[in-house]
Amino acid sequence: MALTVAAVRERAPLVLGVTGTATQGLVADGLLAGGARPMLTATADESPTLVTVADALLVNLGSLNGDAREGAVPTARSATAYGKAWVLDPVAIGVAPVRTPLAHQLLALGPTAVRGNASEVVALHRGATGGHFGHGPDATLGPDAAIDSARALAAAHGCVVAVSGPVDAVTDGERLVRVASGHPLLTRISGTGCLLGALTAATLSVRVGAFGAVVAATALLTVAAERAAVEGVGPGTFRIRLLDALDAVSADEVATKVRLEWV
Amino acid sequence: MALTVAAVRERAPLVLGVTGTATQGLVADGLLAGGARPMLTATADESPTLVTVADALLVNLGSLNGDAREGAVPTARSATAYGKAWVLDPVAIGVAPVRTPLAHQLLALGPTAVRGNASEVVALHRGATGGHFGHGPDATLGPDAAIDSARALAAAHGCVVAVSGPVDAVTDGERLVRVASGHPLLTRISGTGCLLGALTAATLSVRVGAFGAVVAATALLTVAAERAAVEGVGPGTFRIRLLDALDAVSADEVATKVRLEWV
Amino acid sequence: MALTVAAVRERAPLVLGVTGTATQGLVADGLLAGGARPMLTATADESPTLVTVADALLVNLGSLNGDAREGAVPTARSATAYGKAWVLDPVAIGVAPVRTPLAHQLLALGPTAVRGNASEVVALHRGATGGHFGHGPDATLGPDAAIDSARALAAAHGCVVAVSGPVDAVTDGERLVRVASGHPLLTRISGTGCLLGALTAATLSVRVGAFGAVVAATALLTVAAERAAVEGVGPGTFRIRLLDALDAVSADEVATKVRLEWV
Repeated sequence: MALTVAAVRERAPLVLGVTGTATQGLVADGLLAGGARPMLTATADESPTLVTVADALLVNLGSLNGDAREGAVPTARSATAYGKAWVLDPVAIGVAPVRTPLAHQLLALGPTAVRGNASEVVALHRGATGGHFGHGPDATLGPDAAIDSARALAAAHGCVVAVSGPVDAVTDGERLVRVASGHPLLTRISGTGCLLGALTAATLSVRVGAFGAVVAATALLTVAAERAAVEGVGPGTFRIRLLDALDAVSADEVATKVRLEWV
Repeated sequence: MALTVAAVRERAPLVLGVTGTATQGLVADGLLAGGARPMLTATADESPTLVTVADALLVNLGSLNGDAREGAVPTARSATAYGKAWVLDPVAIGVAPVRTPLAHQLLALGPTAVRGNASEVVALHRGATGGHFGHGPDATLGPDAAIDSARALAAAHGCVVAVSGPVDAVTDGERLVRVASGHPLLTRISGTGCLLGALTAATLSVRVGAFGAVVAATALLTVAAERAAVEGVGPGTFRIRLLDALDAVSADEVATKVRLEWV
Repeated sequence: MALTVAAVRERAPLVLGVTGTATQGLVADGLLAGGARPMLTATADESPTLVTVADALLVNLGSLNGDAREGAVPTARSATAYGKAWVLDPVAIGVAPVRTPLAHQLLALGPTAVRGNASEVVALHRGATGGHFGHGPDATLGPDAAIDSARALAAAHGCVVAVSGPVDAVTDGERLVRVASGHPLLTRISGTGCLLGALTAATLSVRVGAFGAVVAATALLTVAAERAAVEGVGPGTFRIRLLDALDAVSADEVATKVRLEWV
């Protein structure tokens, strides 16, 4: 894990983000603070080409706009064709009529990893016909409710699935680890889930093994959050300190302080 | 007023924002800091459905892009059909050729509240044929110049109109109150007007009465601004402290410290 | 130089930005902190009209979306027709298939100034047929490698060209000055290059001469960065302090502290 975090800082991977607009600021600054380099462009005309020079790809359906809707599939297809690791973050699927089938279409293209909250992971597993599992960007289910869905998704699609929540869970279909580090303030600023997806793309690019890479990204963000959340800090200050901490935390500190629970 | 602020924090209303992109970061973080939950998606394909699961809607014409232009009317129509409170923020209308008629079209759909600066409120009242009343996102008129327009708009459309400025004014066509709290630094960072519109959507969702809800949102932002604007603070630090203050200020403090002038 | 910085603060020029979305937050807040006023709207339907009431224009191809792709050329054409100063920032040209020819098309419309990193300036000079000179938003060449391209571009198109890097270079085809102020943290937060383009539009609007205006904007940002980068500061805190410093630094301090090297 320390090696993965250190390798991101050494190699400074270029992460292409096909993302919605609302959280691009935190995603870009968070990637830079973590040692990677962001390039956030979503169009079908450019992103499938740009991913060929990137080290990894994030496809994030938050605040899904027309460009990202058109660009997501061809860019993901290009990533798979060129052997680039990529992360699917199916933000707010469930009730939304475009992104829910789009997420399933993307899943079929073979993401290296999927990151979502419990509601999103369940909706991705059960499919649009299973009813409305989410009602916005926030989970209405706890992470444990999504464990079975996460395992099944990972096994069926050969990817690693990360379920975010008060305690995160990561599985490749067989192994399951819970990451108990973190802080409630992560839910009080917008875009920390998107940032975790972006950092996951960065760690996947190091190619030490997808399962370990997803755990390393989760460890980096959650340990940085603990470092940032000093007594009495408000959400505005926490956002700034989180960026500072992503930069300042040592790879060894991430490996030492992360609280993993193997199941 | 204290009850409204407290109710937002207790219920954590989901606010759908059909907004331009430039100020989404502050809008999302400010809603979270104030106790609400943001979902910022603008497309005609998704937003009319998403508003049915939201608690309130903000339609903001700032940095108006193609998605928001197409999505604004069907989403507002859906909000009205489903009985959701919604706010119209007609950013920079006047000279801009698309958003000016669009704002009038939206006004006809029955917003619960309208928030704008003096130039925007006058332009919304007099119509595009009245000439160019604005020349960008900043007001060229003082708030008092818009009082007659605000009263007339509110009376004609059965909505509450808030005019932002050094002293804000809120009217439902009969009642008029000025909110003298606030700080000049609110004009030195981008998006505070947009955030006021978003917070207004949040307080409207509590349904204590639209007039009181609009005043409560204005009170919350302006009292938080006073708390954030400590001696010597620059605009970057003020932005962070404003988010901290939106989170930290108590509902009672908002009610006690706001400076209201009944006219 | 001090006069230019002071004039921006006195006149508060309205800068229209046809920009991608990812860095709009820093661009808008940075313009406000520097004394200008931002209006960030990219569509072909509105921006060509809005530029007629603006004082200057920035066309920035970062995170190029569909609206900006359609709006860039007609807005630049309108700026030239109405005698408004405008800046071309050809972000990440080279490999990207849409923005590379678009940048050349924009160049032919007569920007007042061009700002880019070394890779972008070389790609803009040599043309798309010269091969892939960039591979993302970061330069793969040092600024000196672009000096010949910058001079040639400036001479051929009658504009001022600024090459950003550890040491910036500004040329009008004859004169060449290096700006050695600045700080490595400028590369650790997203959007500082975009912000430099925006501040350049603001200083150009003062119309003291394009060469001096471009140097003044570079001086303002780099001296503010030095003021912001106190010992031990992380990238999150630096971003906030940079906004504070853009507001707080005096015009005289910019002129006194900037490190210019005439070549």
